Amino acid sequence: MIHPPALPHGLQLTADGRLRHFLTVEGLSRELLTRIMDTAESFASVTEQSVKKVPLLRGKTVVNLFFETSTRTRTTFELAAKRLSADVLNINVATSATSKGESLLDTIRNLEAMHVDMFVVRHDESGAAHFIARQVAPHISVINAGDGWHAHPTQAMLDMFTIRRLKQRFEGLKVAIVGDIFHSRVARSDIHALRILGVRDIRVVAPRTLLPTDIATLGVTPYCDLDEGIRDTDVIIMLRLQKERMSGAFIPSLHEYFSRFGLTDSRLVHARPDVIIMHPGPINRGVEIDSAVADGSRSVILQQVSHGIAVRMAVMSMAMQPAITPEKTT
Amino acid sequence: MIHPPALPHGLQLTADGRLRHFLTVEGLSRELLTRIMDTAESFASVTEQSVKKVPLLRGKTVVNLFFETSTRTRTTFELAAKRLSADVLNINVATSATSKGESLLDTIRNLEAMHVDMFVVRHDESGAAHFIARQVAPHISVINAGDGWHAHPTQAMLDMFTIRRLKQRFEGLKVAIVGDIFHSRVARSDIHALRILGVRDIRVVAPRTLLPTDIATLGVTPYCDLDEGIRDTDVIIMLRLQKERMSGAFIPSLHEYFSRFGLTDSRLVHARPDVIIMHPGPINRGVEIDSAVADGSRSVILQQVSHGIAVRMAVMSMAMQPAITPEKTT
Amino acid sequence: MIHPPALPHGLQLTADGRLRHFLTVEGLSRELLTRIMDTAESFASVTEQSVKKVPLLRGKTVVNLFFETSTRTRTTFELAAKRLSADVLNINVATSATSKGESLLDTIRNLEAMHVDMFVVRHDESGAAHFIARQVAPHISVINAGDGWHAHPTQAMLDMFTIRRLKQRFEGLKVAIVGDIFHSRVARSDIHALRILGVRDIRVVAPRTLLPTDIATLGVTPYCDLDEGIRDTDVIIMLRLQKERMSGAFIPSLHEYFSRFGLTDSRLVHARPDVIIMHPGPINRGVEIDSAVADGSRSVILQQVSHGIAVRMAVMSMAMQPAITPEKTT
Repeated sequence: MIHPPALPHGLQLTADGRLRHFLTVEGLSRELLTRIMDTAESFASVTEQSVKKVPLLRGKTVVNLFFETSTRTRTTFELAAKRLSADVLNINVATSATSKGESLLDTIRNLEAMHVDMFVVRHDESGAAHFIARQVAPHISVINAGDGWHAHPTQAMLDMFTIRRLKQRFEGLKVAIVGDIFHSRVARSDIHALRILGVRDIRVVAPRTLLPTDIATLGVTPYCDLDEGIRDTDVIIMLRLQKERMSGAFIPSLHEYFSRFGLTDSRLVHARPDVIIMHPGPINRGVEIDSAVADGSRSVILQQVSHGIAVRMAVMSMAMQPAITPEKTT
Repeated sequence: MIHPPALPHGLQLTADGRLRHFLTVEGLSRELLTRIMDTAESFASVTEQSVKKVPLLRGKTVVNLFFETSTRTRTTFELAAKRLSADVLNINVATSATSKGESLLDTIRNLEAMHVDMFVVRHDESGAAHFIARQVAPHISVINAGDGWHAHPTQAMLDMFTIRRLKQRFEGLKVAIVGDIFHSRVARSDIHALRILGVRDIRVVAPRTLLPTDIATLGVTPYCDLDEGIRDTDVIIMLRLQKERMSGAFIPSLHEYFSRFGLTDSRLVHARPDVIIMHPGPINRGVEIDSAVADGSRSVILQQVSHGIAVRMAVMSMAMQPAITPEKTT
Repeated sequence: MIHPPALPHGLQLTADGRLRHFLTVEGLSRELLTRIMDTAESFASVTEQSVKKVPLLRGKTVVNLFFETSTRTRTTFELAAKRLSADVLNINVATSATSKGESLLDTIRNLEAMHVDMFVVRHDESGAAHFIARQVAPHISVINAGDGWHAHPTQAMLDMFTIRRLKQRFEGLKVAIVGDIFHSRVARSDIHALRILGVRDIRVVAPRTLLPTDIATLGVTPYCDLDEGIRDTDVIIMLRLQKERMSGAFIPSLHEYFSRFGLTDSRLVHARPDVIIMHPGPINRGVEIDSAVADGSRSVILQQVSHGIAVRMAVMSMAMQPAITPEKTT
């Protein structure tokens, strides 16, 4: 597993412990993660009501700064920002100024000078969001929307929110994360979040080639057998098998991968009867998960998507809180 | 002519006969088409006033789901949605999740989970909008913005609205549709709408290679001679000759096509003096229509574009009515 | 220097001398340029406050019509329009209707028919914005966001606004413009604006190959030596060296260009101690400007970016004034 960039302590938090940036769940307190989920709970009802807008970020400008294409993630952040009444700028940097040879830092400085308020950053290099957070002016918040193999903290929080809504607790849960652990920022962020929230039995299930050798240092138990790995679990988080791993050295063949690690109804007998099945999407039907499971009664995959909007609204509004609060008091 | 997918009766309408989806004009009542035009009339004045927004869809999210690029159609729907105060998400699916191997249905389910309210669907396969309408949750409306060779119902309604504004009636009109009837969803939708609204004399004018053999079953009269076809007409609807038909088996040459079927001022002597010339755009000057006609006093082509916004506002707000009304009464 | 298209006198102004289009600063009065800067001053405070929106263009539709990609310029116009509460349509014409063979004029006519209110036009051909301005309906304004080598008037006005904010005057200033004068619409627009505002000592500094032969007719003094050219200057405006000029006939090598015309701290001893360094961006570090200068205390490059939003808000709202005013009085 690639080691993440060293985290300057407190980069994410204000002096009084509130969220300023959201770069990683690592090092955050159980209280803060709980506050994010509580705030998301209030927004979950917003997205279900007929008029879905709240004016919390009215007049603010949120920049979706995507160095890596992800229509799905960009869409959820765009919807979250619009439902908070913010203006949204979508900037696909691959096709943008950097093609004119401008550096990342110059791009940031320029957008900053345009008085934007938040960067939602997606980048294929680990540490990109941290780098930007270290550079920005005091009034600007940075949200990590996925950086390399490192972290995807809003995905982890929507996963936690989904578990809490369906299991009402974290203590005593058995959770298995199945698939390409090695290359997964989702796995890494989920593991940190689960541990912070008090889950002690966390398993990672993968072929040996997709398991980092030092994985045990994260406090999880590795399994190379799916049936064993999911035995008695309350929650199974399936990971997407990226296309670029589907051939070559990592797995022998798609067929063998599915027969050994694909989640099917018949495998599920090993888990608890009330197990919930999660997946960050988009799913590869018949690769890591069978359609009968993905569309079945134990799947909460689409609820995760809904929760993604609420959790992103929560994180965005909390990160802007320091900026919002003074306005109220002056 | 490609036969459209079988229509489950009532898919477009609520139990009490209101519009829920707008997929095709086929099978709708004269009353409903008239209500769409009456509603559009009220919005036509909105787009002409200085502040062009009405709050009817405030807090609603409209997704432009385009599987086929069409800046013009996308733009008119985007403008219509924004003038109704909706939030708009533009998703070009060619470059989106499906490139990650996600199925159409998974894309729909995911957007649905994000609590969007309407899909405006453009697809190069006939029946795509119907397919989506059959799948979506009860609160979501689907508007067909053109599917394959099948239907383009908002184009038909803006054509009808234009005819009504300029001719004040449908009964007794003689209407000719000229051009590539075979591949035209506009022709098909216009024919259905004209018949529903009471036009008895509908002609289709085209080279034999661009006329479906079973065209008479739609209740229209085929012509292979332009002068004859437009004789004494009140309305001429020219169709765009798609580039991909311009060479090869369908027409001998652009020059011959224009000389036989291109609309020129000298041809227009055969029509009524107050004939109006329509075209769904974009026009091919010198291919199916001469510039003197397209820009002349009888052309209402640009009025059609204006009416397109009003008609799309009408259809979008009517389709959301079932969702809007309960809110008012609770 | 390419000669700009002949300017029909008064194309930019209404009968009573107010701004209708903003195509070039050439021929405008000192009073009008001053009014633009005064208006920008009021918006500069808007972008600095917490809620950054003013309702001046509510219900108006601004179309960013970009025939040439420029994320940075498009972004500043989009932000300026949104902070004025306008709806914004981004149309990248390279990938749009013209690919269906529609002419520029048909594209304009169609958008016009959709009741849009303003075109922000970027085009690689000189005179494109003028052409469009001559064609549009009376209620529509056209803003030139850069046309070929001809003009970039909002860039010039943000440069002037920056000079005024930092130098509090124009009379008596010595200003040098350094770099590829030959191909620069920024240089041309800046020269016109500086002269209108009363700057008498304007120098252009460039290798002979990048200096137009008739440059003196614009009322500026050419220099081929950087130290001489910037001697005692109050303001230095560096130009971007376009990549396509970096090799071939115009300059011998990047290294030699930098050693002769690159701005470094040691060069700056020739300028006044309180000289300000400007650049339209994006900068080429180590090509036309040293990082120590670009990021140094005399650089006002990022202030220019901020001012760009305020100046564009000013120009957009002033150009819409004729349209806004009647509404107030009726």
